Amino acid sequence: MKTSLLLSLFCVSTAALALADPLPSWNDTAPKKAIVEFVEKVTKEGTPDFMPPAERIAVFDNDGTLWSEQPMYFQLFYAFDRVKELAPKHPEWKTEEPFASVLKGDLKGVAASGEKGLMKIVAATHAGMTTEEFSKSVGDWIATAKHPKTGKPFTKMIFQPMVELLGYLRANGFKTFIVSGGGIEFMRPWAEKTYGIPPEQVVGSSLKMKYEVRDGESVLVKLPEVDLIDDGAGKPIGIQSHIGRRPIFAAGNSDGDFQMLEWTTAGSGPRFGMIVHHTDADREFAYDRDSKFGRLARGLDEAAKRGWAVIDMKRDWKEVFVP
Amino acid sequence: MKTSLLLSLFCVSTAALALADPLPSWNDTAPKKAIVEFVEKVTKEGTPDFMPPAERIAVFDNDGTLWSEQPMYFQLFYAFDRVKELAPKHPEWKTEEPFASVLKGDLKGVAASGEKGLMKIVAATHAGMTTEEFSKSVGDWIATAKHPKTGKPFTKMIFQPMVELLGYLRANGFKTFIVSGGGIEFMRPWAEKTYGIPPEQVVGSSLKMKYEVRDGESVLVKLPEVDLIDDGAGKPIGIQSHIGRRPIFAAGNSDGDFQMLEWTTAGSGPRFGMIVHHTDADREFAYDRDSKFGRLARGLDEAAKRGWAVIDMKRDWKEVFVP
Repeated sequence: MKTSLLLSLFCVSTAALALADPLPSWNDTAPKKAIVEFVEKVTKEGTPDFMPPAERIAVFDNDGTLWSEQPMYFQLFYAFDRVKELAPKHPEWKTEEPFASVLKGDLKGVAASGEKGLMKIVAATHAGMTTEEFSKSVGDWIATAKHPKTGKPFTKMIFQPMVELLGYLRANGFKTFIVSGGGIEFMRPWAEKTYGIPPEQVVGSSLKMKYEVRDGESVLVKLPEVDLIDDGAGKPIGIQSHIGRRPIFAAGNSDGDFQMLEWTTAGSGPRFGMIVHHTDADREFAYDRDSKFGRLARGLDEAAKRGWAVIDMKRDWKEVFVP
Repeated sequence: MKTSLLLSLFCVSTAALALADPLPSWNDTAPKKAIVEFVEKVTKEGTPDFMPPAERIAVFDNDGTLWSEQPMYFQLFYAFDRVKELAPKHPEWKTEEPFASVLKGDLKGVAASGEKGLMKIVAATHAGMTTEEFSKSVGDWIATAKHPKTGKPFTKMIFQPMVELLGYLRANGFKTFIVSGGGIEFMRPWAEKTYGIPPEQVVGSSLKMKYEVRDGESVLVKLPEVDLIDDGAGKPIGIQSHIGRRPIFAAGNSDGDFQMLEWTTAGSGPRFGMIVHHTDADREFAYDRDSKFGRLARGLDEAAKRGWAVIDMKRDWKEVFVP
């Protein structure tokens, strides 16, 4: 009797374990079911859909997919804070655009300076340093900076359901990568701690670098010259360059992710593409076709035809942000 | 009595297991001892030299370090074979340099065409294809091509002691990467099978790519334009771009690896740099300062001062090639 009681308890607990929800912050709506079904399918040995672990490459956009991107990309907050920090050494910035607008907090003025203005800000804030100096600067900033609307640290504006999804995929033998239009060196200092994604699995936009020995010290200096813009058609290129195989799972949220989703899901065998649709103005932000950051139009128009899952944040997510 | 006999047998066998030589093709000379000492040091928890697994990044040059590189880089054999294969479609190559020299087997003529000639060969044989077509072409070639001197397949000219070293490092929590002046897409199709190094851990020279949808199919086309020359000062750049942390172990064989060794061993904490010195004309090739391929001079001059281990292939290796 005692033995059978123990045995049945044991059976219950292993059954509970097997049934433990790997995605507790997701509602039991269609996208969650589709994700679980896909993962179970590709990990079931002896079936035609089985994918060996080496092929289980999953790629995630960052801005708008793993964390918020409103009212503008968080990396821009870093750049603007950095302009303010460096301003005392650059008295000429008081009148020189786009710096003058940054210092006045005039976002429209910054925007008016266009791509050329943006490149000036990037050159002033992201180049001329060694990779190690830049990494330290980003690490210091992200530890203290706060989002202007929510007042939260930026690393608390990471989506809990996506963190669960990353963990669920890894627990099933997937290797998870970030493939972002954001700066590769901007993400690396905190991606491992917040997403569990090591530096060698971060792909992003990059500046050229120069190697030199400076006063007996080996350094890599970031140059004010673009190497790769890892956005749009640049994403499959970044993926091939860094990963060298076609992913089987891709998650994005804007039309900048369209080609990544296309490249991923056009491969043979089972594939999964998903788009995070920002529909929750109360808990986060609601935007798509008309947004300046993270514009989503073509993706919405073609998702059904292409078999991509569209996540409706309001409907599909129980929680939005990490606790 | 029986129990204690069993027990002692058990103890002997686990002791034997613990003592099993992880590097059986290495003679018990100084370099092997230095390698084992380094690995034991960085993996011993609770000591100041302990390195967490995430920091255990090891980088390996390919040509001359993991496999032979004489009488010329093996990738050139591929390129020349490819010129011959494509020649029927290019009657003009009969008189156009450097193709005419390639078709006549006149290496001096090819060399005389210089870097410009080499770029023409690269453009004709490595570009204008999709990444998948190129990968298939390399895979087909490496399965059948033979080395002109030894008659062996090129993948049998891989160094057994280095394969053991890769495995030994991985068994101790290291992540092993190739960082080669050779083409990244040339190595990926066979690096996983021969070295146990997956495509995402291969860094190499690369051409630019273009993403396009061709007749409804997503493809990446290789362009006849250099993206990165992953050699010399390009190696630390390739490492930072792909890996994003400074390795703690680096192995090379030529002055093209100098900056990689310098960048690796200049980091704080325990570091290991090693140079494979080709000293064995009987079993492989003997060359250094005057070689056209894999020239090694500065590395030899500065190794002692910088604390890099120099492997004397003749003295330090029991076996040279994989069986």
